[in-house]
Amino acid sequence: MSNSLPPVRNVLYIMCDQLRRDYLSCYGHPHLHTPNIDRLAAAGVRFSRAYTQGTICGPSRMSAYTGRYVSSHQVAWNAVPLPLEELTLGDYLRPHGIRTALVGKTHATPNLDALQRLAIDPDSPQAEALNEVGFEPYLRHDGIYPDDPIFDDKRDAAPYTHYLRSLGYDGLNPWHDWANAGAGEQGQILSGWKMRNAHLPARVAEEHSETVYTTDRAIDFINEQGEQPWCLHLSYIKPHWPYIAPAPYHALYGPEQVIPAVRAAPGQLSDHPVYAAFRQHQESLNFSRDEVRLNVVPTYMGLIKQVDDQLGRLFDFLQSNGRWDDTLIVFTSDHGDFLGDHYLGEKEFLLEPAVGVPLIVRDPRAAADSRRGSVDERLVETIDALPTFLDALGLPGAEHRLEGRSLIPLLHGATADWRRYAISEYDYAFQAPARERLGQPIDRCRMTMVRSERWKYLAYDGLRPQLFDLHNDPQELHDLGADPAYAAVREEHLGYLLEWLRGLKRRTTISHEEIDLRGQRFRYGEPESEKLVPIGVW
Amino acid sequence: MSNSLPPVRNVLYIMCDQLRRDYLSCYGHPHLHTPNIDRLAAAGVRFSRAYTQGTICGPSRMSAYTGRYVSSHQVAWNAVPLPLEELTLGDYLRPHGIRTALVGKTHATPNLDALQRLAIDPDSPQAEALNEVGFEPYLRHDGIYPDDPIFDDKRDAAPYTHYLRSLGYDGLNPWHDWANAGAGEQGQILSGWKMRNAHLPARVAEEHSETVYTTDRAIDFINEQGEQPWCLHLSYIKPHWPYIAPAPYHALYGPEQVIPAVRAAPGQLSDHPVYAAFRQHQESLNFSRDEVRLNVVPTYMGLIKQVDDQLGRLFDFLQSNGRWDDTLIVFTSDHGDFLGDHYLGEKEFLLEPAVGVPLIVRDPRAAADSRRGSVDERLVETIDALPTFLDALGLPGAEHRLEGRSLIPLLHGATADWRRYAISEYDYAFQAPARERLGQPIDRCRMTMVRSERWKYLAYDGLRPQLFDLHNDPQELHDLGADPAYAAVREEHLGYLLEWLRGLKRRTTISHEEIDLRGQRFRYGEPESEKLVPIGVW
Repeated sequence: MSNSLPPVRNVLYIMCDQLRRDYLSCYGHPHLHTPNIDRLAAAGVRFSRAYTQGTICGPSRMSAYTGRYVSSHQVAWNAVPLPLEELTLGDYLRPHGIRTALVGKTHATPNLDALQRLAIDPDSPQAEALNEVGFEPYLRHDGIYPDDPIFDDKRDAAPYTHYLRSLGYDGLNPWHDWANAGAGEQGQILSGWKMRNAHLPARVAEEHSETVYTTDRAIDFINEQGEQPWCLHLSYIKPHWPYIAPAPYHALYGPEQVIPAVRAAPGQLSDHPVYAAFRQHQESLNFSRDEVRLNVVPTYMGLIKQVDDQLGRLFDFLQSNGRWDDTLIVFTSDHGDFLGDHYLGEKEFLLEPAVGVPLIVRDPRAAADSRRGSVDERLVETIDALPTFLDALGLPGAEHRLEGRSLIPLLHGATADWRRYAISEYDYAFQAPARERLGQPIDRCRMTMVRSERWKYLAYDGLRPQLFDLHNDPQELHDLGADPAYAAVREEHLGYLLEWLRGLKRRTTISHEEIDLRGQRFRYGEPESEKLVPIGVW
Repeated sequence: MSNSLPPVRNVLYIMCDQLRRDYLSCYGHPHLHTPNIDRLAAAGVRFSRAYTQGTICGPSRMSAYTGRYVSSHQVAWNAVPLPLEELTLGDYLRPHGIRTALVGKTHATPNLDALQRLAIDPDSPQAEALNEVGFEPYLRHDGIYPDDPIFDDKRDAAPYTHYLRSLGYDGLNPWHDWANAGAGEQGQILSGWKMRNAHLPARVAEEHSETVYTTDRAIDFINEQGEQPWCLHLSYIKPHWPYIAPAPYHALYGPEQVIPAVRAAPGQLSDHPVYAAFRQHQESLNFSRDEVRLNVVPTYMGLIKQVDDQLGRLFDFLQSNGRWDDTLIVFTSDHGDFLGDHYLGEKEFLLEPAVGVPLIVRDPRAAADSRRGSVDERLVETIDALPTFLDALGLPGAEHRLEGRSLIPLLHGATADWRRYAISEYDYAFQAPARERLGQPIDRCRMTMVRSERWKYLAYDGLRPQLFDLHNDPQELHDLGADPAYAAVREEHLGYLLEWLRGLKRRTTISHEEIDLRGQRFRYGEPESEKLVPIGVW
């Protein structure tokens, strides 16, 4: 804990999905105004260089919930189970009487093999806690329900499916047919999966759309808690695809408000083979076409605008009932979206549009007053959220597990020694076409970003690194990874990579306190006549 | 699996505790004759450069049982629980109908926190399997029972306590008072904890001593199994301290058979601070005195001789009942013992007397005939045992977990690409006096050995490395870690360290097969009109 401040009482951890950092007005978007998120930034600290530890949902979120790097929690991709030994936000908070609930998405995947091997009753509270990665699922809404029969059970069990049906939105898949599809001229269902339909209004009424529904449930939960302490993870599925928005958000922005894609001239493109492989992906090829960008990006902006409006409603509610004054509020995203930048779609590459996330933190305490409205340029990470919550709540951490650092000293204007580089990881083993094209074995597909004050170094298994000078080339258009002039910079960053790997917490079943206690008790090696285990005594 | 050979039926995994590689005649000891272990070497392959992954019991054994490096299984020191997610030998074999039993020591520590958190019934079979790191404890004998009351329960529950008492060896702690103590001239109990008593015969009769008792139970188990397949971990506590042997083994060797300690001249000693700190330990100071070495080493030799005699009895038994012909036999140790070499006692430093272990493997199949009696100089590791067993038994491995490699190709004379360096680790966080003397925080006390064909490089958190040229200085007397002339060698080995760290298996909850299956099914990134999750479709 930073100091002896009175703790905050509640934590509100707001996360968007696939929200780029630069698509908020407080982060500089010229056309998309997000006054409510900006209002939080004005009341707190906005971190301009926040990085996610994994650029897709599962890895990023498990880093957020465990406070640990992807290489530590091992969830290298979506739908990879978290090891049962990992402790999550809920595990840290609940023993202290803090109800720790989820409203929205976690992308948690049950660790069925381990549950079975350990004979843990799948209907027990422990199994539920494990399956929900430690959250009480007040409302779980992971939100992506394709029509494939393997999703039938999940879709039919989803609260949002029941909600829509109760309102008369019928069909096998109301999530798709109403909330994520538009209507054709003859009333036919035009799927939001197809980006050509992004400009259409969703068939659902705005007040029944996912973003409003999720906000409603968050308000319900906070109301229900009254004066009892809580931690709420409000986790919006938007602006994640399917890119389709309910009216009026489908039509708030047009092609003239779409900022141009960031792209090296074709002759200047990095020839790195992994980058080249990802440029061949369908989403990359499509997003490289203006027709696609100009149809999709306005809707992406509309979805963000809707989140901002809902947050306005939520913040008003918090201010009206006093929670604004006793709640630590964090706003962030799990990762970004290339939207055609670098000739890429999606987010599976370690460049800024994917790894950079918004991060705004408001500590309600007076100690944070001096920094309200300020911008902090230090390198912060998604794994810092959990230690920040523990610090703010006055709860003990777990130094032998947590790899993030509390942001509270930064929020209070303390001059703290801070990390010199941020890390992010991606594993393309799961991307079979790219992996095959590159001829890499399944365990040699790791990419690791080391981002220092000035440089971004990307390490690859068995392939040359990439290097970008973020001072002179903030858009990452000039890959210096093979340039002999930058050998020393690469070497320096390889050293950071080694230091980071070596520093990962790999002794999670025993605490520092226990090690110290044991050491003090046994005093191995010291000459004493009577010892617990008399080693080396003559 | 190496090929389509008929599998072996049984595995006998014999481990001594604290047995130095060079204290066997087949490894070159000039005075200590171990004809039975030599007989196994003549019938199999003797590995001259085998390394343990951890130089104390717990870490080394968990590497043996999981097939994973210490940094992966996380048991950094003794009495640190293994994470519940780790799979062990028994987990791999038992599902295939192979009874996997323990006779002797594992040094496993129950993971009580995790059992409680997951509400696993401590009396359930799952809890027992977890507590016994996957072995059926046919006879568990961890063997060290100090008088301190915290050991009361463990000692009273120990089968060896009951065994001794049933034979009339009475007292609160018959393990200590009879098997690990000698008698004074007036019949008083002289503790084996005190090395001054090492020359006395233990008060127990030889046929009731730990080594015979353990061998008896191994023979019982093998008899009991008859023609059913089995894997037996026969794990002797000896020649681990207390250094005291039953007659006649206490008196087989004398000072004249004690080989001199390997020690740099005082002015030539490495000034590395960690090495200096360990030299200050009581056991190091004591073992640096000739009086101690000359009293203890003959007994250490006697204890080894007793193990060899018992193995002769066991091997005769296996040959008499046919098991010699269908059983893969491995003989090894968990780590060595400095015995005063390098002015050190015990084993908590990464020099050869501690990290080097004997490793002899006999594959009974004809395919191994061409290599019988040969010496293999390749760098092999304790973690190779488990993959070797799976290979020999014709069972699938788990490429996403196992970090060791099957030795079967080496036993069959195949020219295999092999590892370029061996790794061993030690964490002195648990050694409070050394840690405090060095002023290192609890998570900055790691030592890592990278041993290549020619060099041994020792990396330290926050301190300079050590470097030894094992071709020109096999006794490791000249520390080149600060010598500018060897900067390139150090750099090369730092590169290996990075490669090794990066290669650790950090995706244990999903198999390679599952990743591949998923990749083939979903074909993310490829343009198709219909996909399970239609990402990036126009």
